Amino acid sequence: MYAVILAGGSGTRFWPLSRELSPKQMLSVFGETSLICGTIERARMIIGTEAPSIDIVVGVTLLDEIRNHLLAQPQLADVALNYLVEPVPRNTAPALALAAATIEARDPDGIVMMLPSDQLVDSGKAWRGTMTVAIEAATTTDQLVTIGLVPTRPETGYGYIKAVVGAVGTACPVEAFVEKPDADTAQRYVAAGNYYWNSGMLVAKARVILAELEAAQGTGAEAAAGNERIVEVARQIAALPEAERLSSASYQLFETLPKVSFDNAALEHSTHVAVVPTTMDWSDVGSLLSLEDLAEPDVSGNRIIGDGIAVESQGTLIYSPERLVATLGVKDLLVVDTSDATLVAPRDRAQDVRLVVNALSKQDAPELREPKVSARPWGTWKIVEEGVGFKVKEIVVTPDSRLSLQSHERRSEHWVVVEGTALVTQGNTEIQVETGQSVYNPVGTKHRLENRGASDLHIIEIQVGDYLGEDDIIRYSDDFERT
Amino acid sequence: MYAVILAGGSGTRFWPLSRELSPKQMLSVFGETSLICGTIERARMIIGTEAPSIDIVVGVTLLDEIRNHLLAQPQLADVALNYLVEPVPRNTAPALALAAATIEARDPDGIVMMLPSDQLVDSGKAWRGTMTVAIEAATTTDQLVTIGLVPTRPETGYGYIKAVVGAVGTACPVEAFVEKPDADTAQRYVAAGNYYWNSGMLVAKARVILAELEAAQGTGAEAAAGNERIVEVARQIAALPEAERLSSASYQLFETLPKVSFDNAALEHSTHVAVVPTTMDWSDVGSLLSLEDLAEPDVSGNRIIGDGIAVESQGTLIYSPERLVATLGVKDLLVVDTSDATLVAPRDRAQDVRLVVNALSKQDAPELREPKVSARPWGTWKIVEEGVGFKVKEIVVTPDSRLSLQSHERRSEHWVVVEGTALVTQGNTEIQVETGQSVYNPVGTKHRLENRGASDLHIIEIQVGDYLGEDDIIRYSDDFERT
Repeated sequence: MYAVILAGGSGTRFWPLSRELSPKQMLSVFGETSLICGTIERARMIIGTEAPSIDIVVGVTLLDEIRNHLLAQPQLADVALNYLVEPVPRNTAPALALAAATIEARDPDGIVMMLPSDQLVDSGKAWRGTMTVAIEAATTTDQLVTIGLVPTRPETGYGYIKAVVGAVGTACPVEAFVEKPDADTAQRYVAAGNYYWNSGMLVAKARVILAELEAAQGTGAEAAAGNERIVEVARQIAALPEAERLSSASYQLFETLPKVSFDNAALEHSTHVAVVPTTMDWSDVGSLLSLEDLAEPDVSGNRIIGDGIAVESQGTLIYSPERLVATLGVKDLLVVDTSDATLVAPRDRAQDVRLVVNALSKQDAPELREPKVSARPWGTWKIVEEGVGFKVKEIVVTPDSRLSLQSHERRSEHWVVVEGTALVTQGNTEIQVETGQSVYNPVGTKHRLENRGASDLHIIEIQVGDYLGEDDIIRYSDDFERT
Repeated sequence: MYAVILAGGSGTRFWPLSRELSPKQMLSVFGETSLICGTIERARMIIGTEAPSIDIVVGVTLLDEIRNHLLAQPQLADVALNYLVEPVPRNTAPALALAAATIEARDPDGIVMMLPSDQLVDSGKAWRGTMTVAIEAATTTDQLVTIGLVPTRPETGYGYIKAVVGAVGTACPVEAFVEKPDADTAQRYVAAGNYYWNSGMLVAKARVILAELEAAQGTGAEAAAGNERIVEVARQIAALPEAERLSSASYQLFETLPKVSFDNAALEHSTHVAVVPTTMDWSDVGSLLSLEDLAEPDVSGNRIIGDGIAVESQGTLIYSPERLVATLGVKDLLVVDTSDATLVAPRDRAQDVRLVVNALSKQDAPELREPKVSARPWGTWKIVEEGVGFKVKEIVVTPDSRLSLQSHERRSEHWVVVEGTALVTQGNTEIQVETGQSVYNPVGTKHRLENRGASDLHIIEIQVGDYLGEDDIIRYSDDFERT
């Protein structure tokens, strides 16, 4: 039994909370952990904590960020995470094929549970029961077993799975996959009783995933040839030694594949598909409006998360954890504030945030790419001020953690300890730096910052130099094997 | 000839740009200098740069901030500024009386030009011409000479001055002062041709101001007694030695005065009032909507000042000099962003910002009181990060300036030079600190920061301590005579 977490999504619908390098699955606003971390924890409930590893499918541009993010989660300290890197984004059919081929090479009879990394799911009894039924069906038959949510409203934002005859908690034969419906159609689906929201989760034997993709003929000869090629290339790359997976040869192979979703390429055409209908607590956290679940409305229907004030306003959502946002005389407005960017839109335009993302993309806006706070395996850093020739960061190092032993070619760094005690390595010397004290790392010096205390270490770092990019770093030794 | 600048206004209509300690008259957004600085420069054109001093009427709570602000203006380096402090706010009648009594004590025949500090006025020919006519009239007659703007639209936000017969550029007898009209009335005023916007400027002999206030009987016996008392107390305080002006005796005297405007107390009832109608370029910068003048609209009527993007939006004003603000699908909205607070309101609610200020006041919100950037005579400082036990500031010291020689009882400070060269005094030692270097000021050490360079000096200051209030400062020596 294997678990694959699909973490390729870019999550532009959550800007400004999400960024290119910190997509929706890395957001922690909906609970104590991020969506991807919650997904991994849920997967472990099913495959068991003694399972050798969990595979994460991720695009090459996000690999470092996702890896840093997951390394920083203490509850995942005992999980071996294996990264299956898409050399270039090609939608879900190539991504799932790559994952299935990798599992197949590892275990020809392996059963795999594929889970989107950016959903919010309650991990209670319903979750475990549903997955148990799905796994049973995937074990005893050669079917693609999907999970369908019993619809609680005529939602037009999801695709639906139509069962021949539906029954909650059993694997039912699927009659059809249907695209996002209009409002009337959605109403009919809900009334019919055998239509379910497509959760995007899939359980099947790895070889069945590949076989069904290869066999799908529904969309004509060209598509069929494309499907065959996807499976062929996925197996070729899966057969490569680990080190060659991200080679240019692998990139060139993957680049030739069609951009197609697994739903379109296989599920819609296969005759061996089952759905397990479920009533578990599930949300795809589809837009910024999901933030509404985090606060009760006031008497005028305003919901405020963070530091907001709604004066003579109605039905307005203010999300502003770091700064003060005041609205006056507005109605049904959505204001989402972060340390470097604010979005203002009517609530009913929340689905269209990609229009802002597209416009910002044309301007190559830095606010699209990186958040001001970056997670690292050893803690976090945040840029608090930048100017010509300098940058000021607030660095938090978690207990018993240390950064890599490193040097920089074009910047010097001052570290001022503002909370806790730092153990600083400079060359062959170790220095203990107490709260209120500082230390200086000149250009070229090997240095390392470590927290051996029981609580967080807070440092203000002032970088000075003619180039201050994150890529000016030489790592000599790293607890997290980064290079 | 004397100039008095009325700088008592709190300017809550400009929040979040203005703050209690940085009101509208200190804003520099409308030009190269602040409104008050521009007013002083305009006054000097009329009274001559060789005039001994200019008097600034200011409330006691704003004295330090206004003084620091004006000390920092290089173009005012050769003006002696004299501060007439209102011990407690009592509206404009007591404030003008205090100023007039002070000038009268200095020069019994003195003519005084009273100017609001928070207007935007073009200092060209029309300004000089208008004031020359007003001064001529105030010199040759014992009248209160007001300045009235020829209305360019049926504005309902201003009071009007009705001349018996109006003629631009001449001192005309006034028939009446009228309150802010409704839209129809305003239309009639504009059509009539002898109604003018009340600019709030006044030219008269100091003794005439006091005499007319004393004589005004229009509002009954109680008001008349109040007026007499205002003049009596103003003369009492003006007769005090400088050092006693802010004594508790002076406070107690002033506190007994009625809160009344000079318009209500005197101008509306006096029969010796003239108006000089003028077409000079004038704005009272009455609300945040005045920001619209700073940018041309795009094809959809959106105006963006700073870093904003308006997607599928119309008629929207974004003012955001420091951060990114994106609007999506909104219409006629006003978004004003500062480093610590953002306001969102429909354009036609711009006049109601005080409702937000009132609401924030109830919560004692820190964003109401202080701006993140504070002007000092030697430059500026800005808080870039704060946490338990520490504060990070970016300090800019202008060329040939230095802070006071000071020490702190409860905090230590690290200074990292990120641009320029600092001359740091520590005890009896002077240290030159170059870009990229740092220096440490332990608790209790006497220290001073100085810039002898030709360009700005930028410092990152990290304060560490159990108390970090601005009032933990002992000054031993100060170029600006602050204690």
